[in-house]
Amino acid sequence: MSIVVMKFGGSSVADADRIRKAALRAIKTRKAGHQVVMVVSAMGDSTDGLVDLARQVSSSPSKREMDQLLVTGEQVTISLMAMAMEAMGQPAISFTAGQIGMITDDVHTKARIKSIDVRRIHEQLDAGKVVIVAGFQGVTKEGAYTTLGRGGSNVTLVAIAAALKADVCENYTDVDGIFTADPRIVPTARKIDRVSYDEMLELASLGANVLHNRAVEFAKKYNVPIHVRNSNNEKKGTMIVAESHGMERIVVSGAALKDKLARITLRNVPDRPGTAAKIFHTIATHNIVVDDIIQIVAPNRVATVAFTVDLADLADARKVVDKLSRELGCTATYEDHMAKVSVVGVGMRVHTGVAERMFAALAKAKINIQNITTSEIKISCLIDRAQGKTALKVVHDAFKLGKRNKR
Amino acid sequence: MSIVVMKFGGSSVADADRIRKAALRAIKTRKAGHQVVMVVSAMGDSTDGLVDLARQVSSSPSKREMDQLLVTGEQVTISLMAMAMEAMGQPAISFTAGQIGMITDDVHTKARIKSIDVRRIHEQLDAGKVVIVAGFQGVTKEGAYTTLGRGGSNVTLVAIAAALKADVCENYTDVDGIFTADPRIVPTARKIDRVSYDEMLELASLGANVLHNRAVEFAKKYNVPIHVRNSNNEKKGTMIVAESHGMERIVVSGAALKDKLARITLRNVPDRPGTAAKIFHTIATHNIVVDDIIQIVAPNRVATVAFTVDLADLADARKVVDKLSRELGCTATYEDHMAKVSVVGVGMRVHTGVAERMFAALAKAKINIQNITTSEIKISCLIDRAQGKTALKVVHDAFKLGKRNKR
Repeated sequence: MSIVVMKFGGSSVADADRIRKAALRAIKTRKAGHQVVMVVSAMGDSTDGLVDLARQVSSSPSKREMDQLLVTGEQVTISLMAMAMEAMGQPAISFTAGQIGMITDDVHTKARIKSIDVRRIHEQLDAGKVVIVAGFQGVTKEGAYTTLGRGGSNVTLVAIAAALKADVCENYTDVDGIFTADPRIVPTARKIDRVSYDEMLELASLGANVLHNRAVEFAKKYNVPIHVRNSNNEKKGTMIVAESHGMERIVVSGAALKDKLARITLRNVPDRPGTAAKIFHTIATHNIVVDDIIQIVAPNRVATVAFTVDLADLADARKVVDKLSRELGCTATYEDHMAKVSVVGVGMRVHTGVAERMFAALAKAKINIQNITTSEIKISCLIDRAQGKTALKVVHDAFKLGKRNKR
Repeated sequence: MSIVVMKFGGSSVADADRIRKAALRAIKTRKAGHQVVMVVSAMGDSTDGLVDLARQVSSSPSKREMDQLLVTGEQVTISLMAMAMEAMGQPAISFTAGQIGMITDDVHTKARIKSIDVRRIHEQLDAGKVVIVAGFQGVTKEGAYTTLGRGGSNVTLVAIAAALKADVCENYTDVDGIFTADPRIVPTARKIDRVSYDEMLELASLGANVLHNRAVEFAKKYNVPIHVRNSNNEKKGTMIVAESHGMERIVVSGAALKDKLARITLRNVPDRPGTAAKIFHTIATHNIVVDDIIQIVAPNRVATVAFTVDLADLADARKVVDKLSRELGCTATYEDHMAKVSVVGVGMRVHTGVAERMFAALAKAKINIQNITTSEIKISCLIDRAQGKTALKVVHDAFKLGKRNKR
């Protein structure tokens, strides 16, 4: 009998109706002869409600207590899911992280899973029950609750699937899968059938919010294929899998737009060892996440350092950088109207001409490229936000991403 | 250093403001040099919200899953309380039942505490922290959550106080303590300074809803004095203590009215052994709680059996009793307009004339007594509901309960 692990996110369990619908889905899989484990998130935006309560009593709540608070969200869902399932005649049992020995380190709010005791899950599966596990949470070996950080329920999904050596690992969301671009912006965008872990990592970091990077990294590490699919229909979704030889024939798998970026440029930065380290260490200690970084050194031994941050972080970053630039004797400029368009594909590793094709498409649309950054499987161009959506469309067209390619 | 255990009920932690207020109260006790353990309930009516969610997914949720769901209510409060306290500069730590090894049997929804591992509480108290414990909950030795039934947070309070051999055990509510009668009905009602466990048991069962009987029984068993006091002021409340010799001089400690009762009378019941057992077993299996029972056997070997139930249960009871009376060949009558007035006091054991004084007071007010039931420390009269409040007032006056008596 094969084991299927299925995860339902917050929007798929947001109310009693949707909980029942998710329960039906799991029962259908059970009736098809599989052993079923469900991982569920907190209902809808209930976690936000808990965070709001915490803010009402403390401006800087302890992370241990924050975790103690937040894990209740998933605990509510697991018990309701078990009740719903039993009301439909399917024996079920819910488990918190503590009840299945999902042990993590003690780094509260972003703990890492160390081990899972699957004995109890197997016992209940063998007894014919659907096992419902609380996502996002763990416990330390002393019994304190921890949470796994953003996208934590997907980390739970992958960890459970890996520990059980599950045959199928399904991530149910409210979209049909991973698309070649955001379909709300690019009407010709097409669902991708298969994508590699590395491509997914690049796409996720660009704002395709279906799967958070930690879960994908975890899946890659344990080679767990993830099926991303829609809880509202029966369609096949997107398989996220290890890179295979055939994949290289597809040069570009998808294009993405990251909106709401701000660029900070430091000019006349003294080109001494350790200067860059000092700049980014200072910014990091203020909890500002830096996106891409470029540094160019001029012949006169002064450098230009440019980097992007989320628009929401600009005000905070400005305070830090103003002080820093005075200390370093350089000048800082701030631009709040940036966006980034990127193409991602494992085929880039062996194909040439991807960059040119992208730049040509943007040029033809009269879109000025302000910065360029690349990785082995990604090319990103920083542009003006006003042109962001057009840029995504022309790049998507340039690589014919709307047309189906066999993999 | 003495140990103070203080419990705050749902209304005392209903929102962020009230949580902060309760936190301040605990901090004040800590600053006075005591080690402080707080037991807290779920916020306001949040438990009702969870029960409502459960009803939306299942008409008969499993008790295990119901407990898994309900314990989240207290877990939310403990973490918020710890955050609030730390925001005020007082180190604090929250514990679920599982985290302090509060082991119960596995009777879900009404579990009984078997043991508490106080080591962790002592460690944290010794480190200078206020320890905040989730009321109402326990865990089985296999790690499943349980709940302690109605009034469960008070059971937690008493159990923790007993296990820690605490010096003071305080139950904070939104009233000043236990009164000689409900002050909303009897304006001359007076707060009682000291009351015995047994008197409290009788008063609680009569609807004085401050402390549920299981907590009082638990306190009596372990001889833990409970101080019932108001979280909104600094007044001394009511001490619930073991019976002492001096108490016997007070004949009657309090009077109580139980409203909304219905009387069911069965006439011509065959007077055979086992008939009463059959009647009340049948009623109990339908989850109808029976209040007082009277049986009178006539010379012709047929009995009259009368009993009272909550008005809310009358419709259900009627169905059961109609069927039962056909089987037994007796006639049933139903009255939906009853109330019960009672006086309670340990002094009754050694004093005579209490019943006469009560009956005379009711007669003088032209209140007809329809049934009488007594225990060693209680006399109850069933009357017409329309006269209930008047009855409570005249009985309260007859025993001069509004005047202070030294104990």
